[in-house]
Amino acid sequence: MPSKSFKDLKVSDLGEKRLIKRLLERSQKSQPTSLFLEKFLDENSVKSTKDDAALIDLGENYLVATSDLLMQSAHFPDEMTPFQMGKKVVTVNVSDIAAMGADTICIIVSMGLPKDMSLSNFDEMIEGILESCKQYDMVLIGGDTNESADLTLCGTCIGMVKKENVLMKGGARSSDVVAVTGKLGLAAAGFELLFCDESEESKLEGLDHGFMSLALEHALQPEARLKEGILLGKTGVVTSATDITDGLLSEIGEIIDASPENIGITFYEEQVPIPHEVHEIGNILGKNPLEMALTYGEDFELLLTVQKDKFDDLNHLKNVVDLHEIGFVDSSGIIKMIDKDGKTNVVTPKGYEHLK
Amino acid sequence: MPSKSFKDLKVSDLGEKRLIKRLLERSQKSQPTSLFLEKFLDENSVKSTKDDAALIDLGENYLVATSDLLMQSAHFPDEMTPFQMGKKVVTVNVSDIAAMGADTICIIVSMGLPKDMSLSNFDEMIEGILESCKQYDMVLIGGDTNESADLTLCGTCIGMVKKENVLMKGGARSSDVVAVTGKLGLAAAGFELLFCDESEESKLEGLDHGFMSLALEHALQPEARLKEGILLGKTGVVTSATDITDGLLSEIGEIIDASPENIGITFYEEQVPIPHEVHEIGNILGKNPLEMALTYGEDFELLLTVQKDKFDDLNHLKNVVDLHEIGFVDSSGIIKMIDKDGKTNVVTPKGYEHLK
Repeated sequence: MPSKSFKDLKVSDLGEKRLIKRLLERSQKSQPTSLFLEKFLDENSVKSTKDDAALIDLGENYLVATSDLLMQSAHFPDEMTPFQMGKKVVTVNVSDIAAMGADTICIIVSMGLPKDMSLSNFDEMIEGILESCKQYDMVLIGGDTNESADLTLCGTCIGMVKKENVLMKGGARSSDVVAVTGKLGLAAAGFELLFCDESEESKLEGLDHGFMSLALEHALQPEARLKEGILLGKTGVVTSATDITDGLLSEIGEIIDASPENIGITFYEEQVPIPHEVHEIGNILGKNPLEMALTYGEDFELLLTVQKDKFDDLNHLKNVVDLHEIGFVDSSGIIKMIDKDGKTNVVTPKGYEHLK
Repeated sequence: MPSKSFKDLKVSDLGEKRLIKRLLERSQKSQPTSLFLEKFLDENSVKSTKDDAALIDLGENYLVATSDLLMQSAHFPDEMTPFQMGKKVVTVNVSDIAAMGADTICIIVSMGLPKDMSLSNFDEMIEGILESCKQYDMVLIGGDTNESADLTLCGTCIGMVKKENVLMKGGARSSDVVAVTGKLGLAAAGFELLFCDESEESKLEGLDHGFMSLALEHALQPEARLKEGILLGKTGVVTSATDITDGLLSEIGEIIDASPENIGITFYEEQVPIPHEVHEIGNILGKNPLEMALTYGEDFELLLTVQKDKFDDLNHLKNVVDLHEIGFVDSSGIIKMIDKDGKTNVVTPKGYEHLK
């Protein structure tokens, strides 16, 4: 923390993750979560955790609830259509539900709309929301509209999961296998294409059109790994999980922090699944493909740890889940990357963070 | 609707209520809500209604979910402290839960924070959220923080209610008594005090300080009628209910629209509970006290209709619920006010509406 007096500290001095931590610490201090649900149920808990979503104990099941706030100025590139904005607010929320191994029930979307937004753009945005609802088998159950200079979409998604299938961040143990559900870096490559300036645009002339549209699609119209999260939760061998919205390194840090044990994670540079499209775009734009895969985020894949002796049991999912083993859990307390030359590098969980 | 071509229509041409209606109509067209919850339950419905909150069928109970988005530029006067902003985002959501006769479980608050917001203001806002959570017997279970030029708070509150106790907008029947749970116009008087210009400030010198602080408290730190909503739901004689956040007339219009029958509502000017503080402040500032009570909103009282022959049964609640009979349901299809001179006036449901 910078050496400022408390009085002078701004929220930007802490950054998003530490603000949420501060919020949860304060709420845990003031709130006795035990006994809480007595007014409805014999069981007693609402879990306010470091997880992607909160859990409400319904007996046999957990109700899972999560909320994400997106603002045009911060989250929507100029090239994103209203349809894609609508899809995105659903996707980011469903991704949190997926990371808990839960299935979706419904979503509420509250909107702050610029006064001069055209009605046809509004309709298109609603179509995006509804198409994603259909895709993830849930219903839009309401919303609230307000006026806002900056287009603002706040989604709250509710899901459910049998207690024995829930996936949480805090269960990784030494020797577990570390894996991800798909290729990394495509969204980052897409954003680099979107944000490149005129001098760079000429470099793109030779770029394969298929590569370009694949990367742009990952950046502008990402999909959540809902089906995968549900299937993985049901296997009973996944010890922890989270979604990779803030970059692989950042999420590896979260898995380490959430464990009650002193664990670390070691991964192999060569096993990080970086598709050749990311290498190609990185090379053209002078960006490091590895960095795009590790720190940019927005890939919406799941990161998980699996009992070592049960990892092969997941083979039966291989037609549905594109699982890539990238490393293992150890007791080092830190993150290490073994590079192409076999050299071990200590890395920090520096991912994409808002408010920084 | 103004005579513009569709292409030229802006969201501001429709206004908040018609936008939400448009959203719900589109979602009903695209979403078969029946059979939906089969993946979790034998029962089958998520009710996406015109109500203050959505209902998810959990068998014996409904889970109740609502979301409200508040933005500093539109919702928080300069005089509102961060503590009060935190309280407000909880209160507006709890008020929707209360209007369904439900009890609270938990709330999620997503925040868009200005970069230069001080950490002490952030902490104070969290304290306001947590104090309200304690007051309404629920827990804060999470949130999301982002950077936003305009301080933005999106609350999503989850509650529960036994099916037989749920209150909805759509059940009013001819001859029902129309009532409200408290005095109206104090919040409006408070906002008039906050927004009065320098030339008017001198007029306030003679105003009783108690009056002034009462009105300001209603504007800056309103409370939700949670206890009242729960008790009224349990009586089984309330046929419809909603909260009066958008003004009495607007909400009367909602009750009329939500009924499957062709109902109207007639109320008596003299029975609208306008406290003398509102008359006093209105007189000083040259504002009509009746208009403050009928159209400004932000009072967070409940409006309800009750079976006529059972209205006296509610007497046993009179130590807890400050119930005021204001009129009756008829089959006129319109809103009528019988004024002090006994004259009947047709009125329109013109309440406070954003985006207009």
